[in-house]
Amino acid sequence: MSRVLKKRSKKAGLSPGALTYVGDKEDKKVRITIVHYNSRDYEEEDKTALNDCLGLVAADRITWVNINGLHRPEVMSQLGSCLKMHPLILEDLMNTDQQPKLEEGRDHLFVVIKMLDCHDAARNIQVEQLSLVLGPTYLITLHEQEADPFTPVRERLKNSQSRLRQSGPDYLAYCLLDVIVDRYFVILEQLGEAIETLEEEVVTNPTQKTLQSLHQLKRTLLIFRKAVWPLREIVSRLERRDSPLLREDTAPFFRDVYDHVFQVIDTIETFREMLAGLLDIYLSSISNRLNEIMKVLTIIATIFIPLTFVAGVYGMNFQYMPELRWRWGYFAVLFGMLLIAAVMLLYFRKKKWLGG
Amino acid sequence: MSRVLKKRSKKAGLSPGALTYVGDKEDKKVRITIVHYNSRDYEEEDKTALNDCLGLVAADRITWVNINGLHRPEVMSQLGSCLKMHPLILEDLMNTDQQPKLEEGRDHLFVVIKMLDCHDAARNIQVEQLSLVLGPTYLITLHEQEADPFTPVRERLKNSQSRLRQSGPDYLAYCLLDVIVDRYFVILEQLGEAIETLEEEVVTNPTQKTLQSLHQLKRTLLIFRKAVWPLREIVSRLERRDSPLLREDTAPFFRDVYDHVFQVIDTIETFREMLAGLLDIYLSSISNRLNEIMKVLTIIATIFIPLTFVAGVYGMNFQYMPELRWRWGYFAVLFGMLLIAAVMLLYFRKKKWLGG
Amino acid sequence: MSRVLKKRSKKAGLSPGALTYVGDKEDKKVRITIVHYNSRDYEEEDKTALNDCLGLVAADRITWVNINGLHRPEVMSQLGSCLKMHPLILEDLMNTDQQPKLEEGRDHLFVVIKMLDCHDAARNIQVEQLSLVLGPTYLITLHEQEADPFTPVRERLKNSQSRLRQSGPDYLAYCLLDVIVDRYFVILEQLGEAIETLEEEVVTNPTQKTLQSLHQLKRTLLIFRKAVWPLREIVSRLERRDSPLLREDTAPFFRDVYDHVFQVIDTIETFREMLAGLLDIYLSSISNRLNEIMKVLTIIATIFIPLTFVAGVYGMNFQYMPELRWRWGYFAVLFGMLLIAAVMLLYFRKKKWLGG
Amino acid sequence: MSRVLKKRSKKAGLSPGALTYVGDKEDKKVRITIVHYNSRDYEEEDKTALNDCLGLVAADRITWVNINGLHRPEVMSQLGSCLKMHPLILEDLMNTDQQPKLEEGRDHLFVVIKMLDCHDAARNIQVEQLSLVLGPTYLITLHEQEADPFTPVRERLKNSQSRLRQSGPDYLAYCLLDVIVDRYFVILEQLGEAIETLEEEVVTNPTQKTLQSLHQLKRTLLIFRKAVWPLREIVSRLERRDSPLLREDTAPFFRDVYDHVFQVIDTIETFREMLAGLLDIYLSSISNRLNEIMKVLTIIATIFIPLTFVAGVYGMNFQYMPELRWRWGYFAVLFGMLLIAAVMLLYFRKKKWLGG
Amino acid sequence: MSRVLKKRSKKAGLSPGALTYVGDKEDKKVRITIVHYNSRDYEEEDKTALNDCLGLVAADRITWVNINGLHRPEVMSQLGSCLKMHPLILEDLMNTDQQPKLEEGRDHLFVVIKMLDCHDAARNIQVEQLSLVLGPTYLITLHEQEADPFTPVRERLKNSQSRLRQSGPDYLAYCLLDVIVDRYFVILEQLGEAIETLEEEVVTNPTQKTLQSLHQLKRTLLIFRKAVWPLREIVSRLERRDSPLLREDTAPFFRDVYDHVFQVIDTIETFREMLAGLLDIYLSSISNRLNEIMKVLTIIATIFIPLTFVAGVYGMNFQYMPELRWRWGYFAVLFGMLLIAAVMLLYFRKKKWLGG
Repeated sequence: MSRVLKKRSKKAGLSPGALTYVGDKEDKKVRITIVHYNSRDYEEEDKTALNDCLGLVAADRITWVNINGLHRPEVMSQLGSCLKMHPLILEDLMNTDQQPKLEEGRDHLFVVIKMLDCHDAARNIQVEQLSLVLGPTYLITLHEQEADPFTPVRERLKNSQSRLRQSGPDYLAYCLLDVIVDRYFVILEQLGEAIETLEEEVVTNPTQKTLQSLHQLKRTLLIFRKAVWPLREIVSRLERRDSPLLREDTAPFFRDVYDHVFQVIDTIETFREMLAGLLDIYLSSISNRLNEIMKVLTIIATIFIPLTFVAGVYGMNFQYMPELRWRWGYFAVLFGMLLIAAVMLLYFRKKKWLGG
Repeated sequence: MSRVLKKRSKKAGLSPGALTYVGDKEDKKVRITIVHYNSRDYEEEDKTALNDCLGLVAADRITWVNINGLHRPEVMSQLGSCLKMHPLILEDLMNTDQQPKLEEGRDHLFVVIKMLDCHDAARNIQVEQLSLVLGPTYLITLHEQEADPFTPVRERLKNSQSRLRQSGPDYLAYCLLDVIVDRYFVILEQLGEAIETLEEEVVTNPTQKTLQSLHQLKRTLLIFRKAVWPLREIVSRLERRDSPLLREDTAPFFRDVYDHVFQVIDTIETFREMLAGLLDIYLSSISNRLNEIMKVLTIIATIFIPLTFVAGVYGMNFQYMPELRWRWGYFAVLFGMLLIAAVMLLYFRKKKWLGG
Repeated sequence: MSRVLKKRSKKAGLSPGALTYVGDKEDKKVRITIVHYNSRDYEEEDKTALNDCLGLVAADRITWVNINGLHRPEVMSQLGSCLKMHPLILEDLMNTDQQPKLEEGRDHLFVVIKMLDCHDAARNIQVEQLSLVLGPTYLITLHEQEADPFTPVRERLKNSQSRLRQSGPDYLAYCLLDVIVDRYFVILEQLGEAIETLEEEVVTNPTQKTLQSLHQLKRTLLIFRKAVWPLREIVSRLERRDSPLLREDTAPFFRDVYDHVFQVIDTIETFREMLAGLLDIYLSSISNRLNEIMKVLTIIATIFIPLTFVAGVYGMNFQYMPELRWRWGYFAVLFGMLLIAAVMLLYFRKKKWLGG
Repeated sequence: MSRVLKKRSKKAGLSPGALTYVGDKEDKKVRITIVHYNSRDYEEEDKTALNDCLGLVAADRITWVNINGLHRPEVMSQLGSCLKMHPLILEDLMNTDQQPKLEEGRDHLFVVIKMLDCHDAARNIQVEQLSLVLGPTYLITLHEQEADPFTPVRERLKNSQSRLRQSGPDYLAYCLLDVIVDRYFVILEQLGEAIETLEEEVVTNPTQKTLQSLHQLKRTLLIFRKAVWPLREIVSRLERRDSPLLREDTAPFFRDVYDHVFQVIDTIETFREMLAGLLDIYLSSISNRLNEIMKVLTIIATIFIPLTFVAGVYGMNFQYMPELRWRWGYFAVLFGMLLIAAVMLLYFRKKKWLGG
Repeated sequence: MSRVLKKRSKKAGLSPGALTYVGDKEDKKVRITIVHYNSRDYEEEDKTALNDCLGLVAADRITWVNINGLHRPEVMSQLGSCLKMHPLILEDLMNTDQQPKLEEGRDHLFVVIKMLDCHDAARNIQVEQLSLVLGPTYLITLHEQEADPFTPVRERLKNSQSRLRQSGPDYLAYCLLDVIVDRYFVILEQLGEAIETLEEEVVTNPTQKTLQSLHQLKRTLLIFRKAVWPLREIVSRLERRDSPLLREDTAPFFRDVYDHVFQVIDTIETFREMLAGLLDIYLSSISNRLNEIMKVLTIIATIFIPLTFVAGVYGMNFQYMPELRWRWGYFAVLFGMLLIAAVMLLYFRKKKWLGG
C-alpha cells in the first residue's frame, strides 16, 4: 500500500512548517549540481552541501540547481533562506507524498510533479516526486531518485547553439517537463503490451494468476492516473501564463506538453476500459469452463446411471425372473443397453453438448 | 445505522430554533475550558457552567472557549446571548447530526466539521462533530468527545515565541483544523493497511468473513467520505477569505489545509476503487473454488461410474453369460477397467483438470 | 407502477389550460380551512366551497387558505379568478403528478412540493403533492391528503407571542416546508432501520424474499429521491430571494431548510450505495451457499462412488475369482474400503472442505 | 437496428445540399394541407403538389402548411424557393434521420423533433420525424406518417373563440408540440405497465423470454431517451425566446411544455434504473433456481449413494460373509439403511435445505 | 494494441521540434498533388518532392496541396519554411499519433483529425491521421493513406459551376471534413449490422466466440469514440469562427458537420449501451445453459439413483430374504420402481423442470 500513501502520520501533531522528511531515511548523501549558463558561457559544479547563498543567483545568467535527495533539512532551510521562500513551501519541498500542484509565490513558481519509473510497468511502478522552483533567473529542481533523468537536457545545454541557451529558465523547466512526460509514454507502451498479453491469456487459458495480473494492472493504472491527472490543470495554467515568470514564446511549448498530458490521460482511461472489458471476459470464461465440466459430468452420468440400473435389475436374486433363463437374455440386455446409450448420445448431439 | 443517521426524528414538529440535543443524553458534566492569551500573557481556566458574559470576550486579547459536551441547553443559550448569535445557529450548535458547513454571521463565522476517531479504523469509525465559532477576538469550539484532541495546540500556545501567540484567532482555528486533518491521515493509513490485509486474504483464502470485512471497509469509507467531502468547499472558502475575520497571512495556511483535504478525498476515492476491484476478485475466487470442487466431483464420478457399470454387468444373474466361465474373465475385466480409468485420466490431463 | 407515474394519459388531446384532475376521482368532499391572522387577531373558519372572493384577501392581515382535496374544478377556477392566476398555473394546481417546482407569477410565487407519508417506509411510500401559492398577504395550500399534516403549525399560530404571528406569509410558508422536510427525516430513519435489518438478513439467512425487500427498498429510495431532488434547487432559489415576496429576515430560515434538504439527499445517496453493497453481498452469499451444497454432494459422492465400485467388483459372478474364496477376503475388502474413505477424508480436510 | 440508424450511407459522397430522402422510397402520394386563418376567417385546402408560391404566405392571416410525405424533392425545392430557405435546411428537411434540433434562420425558426408512435410500446416503438418551420405569419410542418396526429388541433382551430385563433403561429407551434409531448406520456404509461408485468414475471417465473423482454424494454427506453433528450434544450431555448418570432405571452406555455419534457426524461431515467434493478433480480433468481436444483440433486444423491453402497456390500459373493447367514441380517440391514436416511434428513433439515 | 498507441517511445529524449516520423518507415514514395484554382481556371500537377516555394501560394487563386506520405522530413521542413510554420506544428504534422485538435497559428489554422477506414468494421478499424493547414489562400492536407479519399471532391472542383470554385479554401476544408464524417456513418452502419448479428447470436447460440466478437466490437467503439470525440469541439470552434480565415457564409456548413459529428457520437454511445446490454444477456444465457444441464443431470440422477438402490437391495445375498421367494416378487419390484419413477416425474413436472 506504501505506493498509494506514505507514512504521513509521522507528521501528525507537529507544528505547521516543521521540516520533516516522510520518505525512508537513508544514509545516502545529498548531491547538488549547480549549472550556470547564458548564451555564451556554461559552467557546472557538484556539491554535497549548500554552505552559503554566494553566487547562487545572478542577474546576467541562468542558474539551475538540481538537488538529489531531500532528507537533509539543513540543506532545505539554507535554500529557503537564500530564496526567501514561505516556510510552508519549504515544508512541501521535503514532503514527498504530495499531489502534483502549482503554487505561485511572490517571485517564484512552485511546481510539484510526479516522475514515474519502472522496469516492468505491469507489476511495479515507482512514483518519485520532482519539485521545481522557478524564479526570474533560476530553476531549482529537487528529487529523490539516485539516477539523473535529466542527462539528455544537460547535454543539449552544453551546445551553445541550442534553443535552451537562448531562452530563460521557463524554457528549461519546459524541457524537464517534456522529458518526464515522454517517459509517461514509455510506461504507457509497456502497459499496453502487458494488456495485450493479458488479452490473449484471458481468452486461451484464464487462471487465478491471470486475475491477479489484471488486478495488478488496474492498480498500476490507478496510481498512474493519480499522478498524471492533476498535471493537466498545472500545465494548462503554465500555458495560460498566469505568472510574469513565463515568457510569451514558451507558451506554445507548454501547449504541446498539455496535448501530450491530455493524450496520456486519455490513453489511461482507454486502458482502464479495456481492463474492465477483460474482467468481464475472464469471469465469463470461468463460467464457460464450469459449463464444460458440468457437461462432461452430465453426459457420463446420464449415460451410465440408467445402464447401471438395468444391470442392477438383472443382478437381483429373485427366484422367479423369467428373463434370466432366456437363451439370448444376456445379449438382448447388452443390446438394449447399447440402444439406451445411443439414444442418449443422439439427445446430447441435438443439444450440441458434444464437441463443444 | 446510527452512524449514518442520528435520531433526528426527536425534532420533528418542534418549532424552529428550539434547542434540542439529538445525541444520546448522558449524565456527563459539561467541561468548559477558557484560554485568554496575547503575545505577552497566557491564562487558562476550567469551568462547568457559564454564568455570565463577564470577561468572556475582550478587545486586547484572544479568547478560546472550548466546550466539551453539548447536551445542556442552558449553557448554549447563555453563550448565544453573550455572542448575539442567530437562534438557528444556536440550534445548529446543539444538533450533532449535521453536514460539515460554513456559515457567515454578521460578526462571526460558524464552521461545522467532523472529527474522526478510531482504534480500529477498518471496523469502527467514530464521527464526532466539532463546531467552531470564529469572532474578531475569540474562537469558540464545541464538541462532545470526552478526550481533548487539542492538547498539542494548547502546549504550543503556552510557548510565547510560537506563531500562535503572534497571530489572531483565525490562525488558532487553522491550527485546530490542521490537527483534525492530520488525524484523517492516520485513519487513512489504518484503512490502507486493512485493505492490504484484505487484498492478501481475498487471493489466498476468501471466506464469507472476508466479504463482510470488505463490506465493512466500504461502509467506513462511505462515512469517511461523507464527513470529509464538504470540507473541501469549506476550506476553499476560508482560503479565498470570504470574510474580514480572516487575515491575509493566514490564507497560505488554509491553502495548505486545502491541499491536504484534497489529498484525503483523492485517497478515499482510490481506496474505494481498490475495494471495488477486491470485490471482483473475491467473486471470481468463489467461482474458481466452485470450479475446483466440480472438477474433483467430475473426475471421481466420470472414472468410477463406467467402471461400476461394468461390474454391474458381470453381476447380472443370467444363466447364459459366456464370459463368466472364461478362465481369465475376471482378470480381463479388471484389466479392462484399468484401461478405462487410464483413458479417462489421460483425457482429464489433456483438459488440464489435474494438478490445477 | 402507479406511484411512479399517474394516469396522465387522461389529459392527452385536451386543450392546454383545461382543468382536469389526474388522481382517482373520489366522492370525498373538498374541505377548505381559512385562517386570518395578524399580530393581534386570529380567526379560523371551515368551508366546503368557495362562493365568492369576499374577504379572501385583505391588506391588514395574513390569510392562509388550506384546501384539502383537488378534484373539484369549480373550486379551483373560483380561486383562480379571485387571485388572477395564469390558466396554466391553475392547471398545474389540479395536476397531482408534477415534478416539484417553483414558478414566479406577477404577484405570487407558485411552489409544488411532495409530501411523503408512510406507515412502513421500507414497503410502501405514499407521495402526496402539496401546492403553495404565496402572495403578498396570503398563502394558499392545496393537497389531497385527508389528514391535516399542519396541525402543529396551526397550534403555534394560535399563540400570539410566536414568531409566526409577527412575520409575513413567507415565514408561514417556511414553517410548512420545515414540517414536510422534518417528515423526510422520519422516513429516512425508518429506511435506515429497514436497511439495518436487511444487512443482518443478507449475511445470516439470505432468501429470495430478502432480495425482494432489497429491491423494494431500492425502489422506495428511487421515488424518495425523485421527490426530494428538485427541492434543493427550489429552496435554494427561495433563500436567494428571487422575489420581493420573500423578506430578508426569512432567508436564514430557508437556508436552514436548504441544509436539511441537502442532508436528506446526501443520506438517500448513502443509502443507495449501501443497498448496492448489500446486493453484492447477497449475490455472493448465494454463490457461497451453492459452493457449500456442492461440497456436501462432492464429499458424499467422492467417498461412496469408489466404495460402491469395489463392492460391485466383488458382486460379479465370474466362476474364477480367487479373492472370493479367501477366508478373510470379505474383511480385507471392508478394511480396504475404510482405508479409501479415510484417505478421501484426509484429502478433503487438506482442501479445507470439512467444517466449513 | 434500423430504428437506431437509418441508411445514411446513401448520402456518402454527394455534394452538400443535395436533396436526398434517406427513408424507404414509397409510392405514396405527398399530401399537402394548407390552412389559412385569422381571428375571423378559417380556410382549408388539400393539394398533392406545390405549383407556385401564390397565396402561400400573406401578412394578414396565418398559414399552416402541413406536408405529409417527404420523398418528393421537387415539393421541397419549391417550398424552399418560396420561403427562401438555406439549402442545408432544405437538405435537413428531407433527411429523416436527424437529431432533434432548433436552428435559427434569418426570418424563420427550424425545429426538428421526434414523434413516437406505438401499439405495443414495450416491443416496438416507431420514431417519426416532424420538422417545423416557423415564420412570422406561417408554420410549415413536415412529416412522413400517414395518419394525421394533429386532428384535435385542427378541430380547435375551427372554433373562432379558441385562443389559437387569437394568437400567432408560435402558439400554433406550441399546440403541436404539446400534442406530441402528451403522446410521450401515453407511451410512458405503456412502458410502465410493461415494467410492472415484468417485475412480477421476474420474481415468480423468470425464463429466457423474460430476459429478452427486459432487453427489449431497455432498448426501447434507449431509443425513447435519444428522441426526447435534446428536446429539453430546444424547448428551453423556445421559452427563453431567442427569436423575435416568439411572442412574450407564449413563453409560459413553452415553460409548461418544458416541465412536461423534463418529467418525461426524469421518468425514463427512473424506468432505466428500475430495469437495471430487475436485471439484478433476474440474475439472482437464476442463481437461486440453480441452488434449488442442486439441493434436490444433493439430497437424493446423498441419501441413496451410501445406501446403495451398503446394498452393494451385501451383494458381494464372498464365500465367508457371516452377516449373510444371520436370521435377521436382511432386516437389520434394511433398518440400518432407514437409520442412515433419517440421519441424513435431519442433517438437511438443520441446514434448512428441506422445504425451501 | 498498436491501434491504441503508436511507438511514441521513439521520440523520448529527442529535443522538442525534432522532425521524426512515428509510423512504420516505408519505402513508399511521397506523392504531392498541387491544385490551383479560382472561379475561372483549374490546374493540377503531381510531384514527388517539393524543391522550392515558387508558385506554391498566390493571392489570386486558391492552392490545395495534398501530401500523401509523411515519412520524409525534408519535404516537411521545406513546406514549413515556405509557409513559415512554428517548428512544433511541423513536428505535429509528422507525428501520426495525435489527438484530433485545432490550433491557431498567426496566419493559418492547423487541424488534425482522424480518418477511419475499414473493410470489416466489427473486426478491424484503421485509423489514419489527416492534418489540414488552412491559410488565407491555400489548404495543405497531409495523410499517410495510399488511396486518395478525396477523389469526389476533386471531381466537383473541376466543375467551374460548383460552389467550391466560387468559395475560399475554408469551404474546401469543409468539403473534405464532410467526406470524412460521411465515412463515419458508413462505419456506423457496419457496426450496427454487426451488433444486430451479435444480438441474435447471443440469444440463440452464445459461445465463447460470441463473447470475443462482443469484446472486439466494444474495443472498436472505444477506438472510434477516441477518434471522433474531440472532433465535436473542433468543428464547434470552426463554426463559431474563432479565426478571420473562416468566412461567414461557410459557418452554416460547419454547423451542419457539427450536427453530424454529434449524431455520430450519440450513436456510438447508444451502441456502447447496447453492447453492455448484450453482455448481460450473454452472461445470463450461460447461466441458463448451466441450469439446463443441471436439470438434465438432476432428473436422470434423481430418478435412477433410488431405483438402482432398490435393485441393489434385492441383489443382496442374504440367505433369508422372504421377498426373493415370492412368485410375483420380481414383477412387484419392477412395478414399484415404475411407481417411484412416475412420482419423480410428476414432482419435476410440478417444478416445471420438464419441457423447459
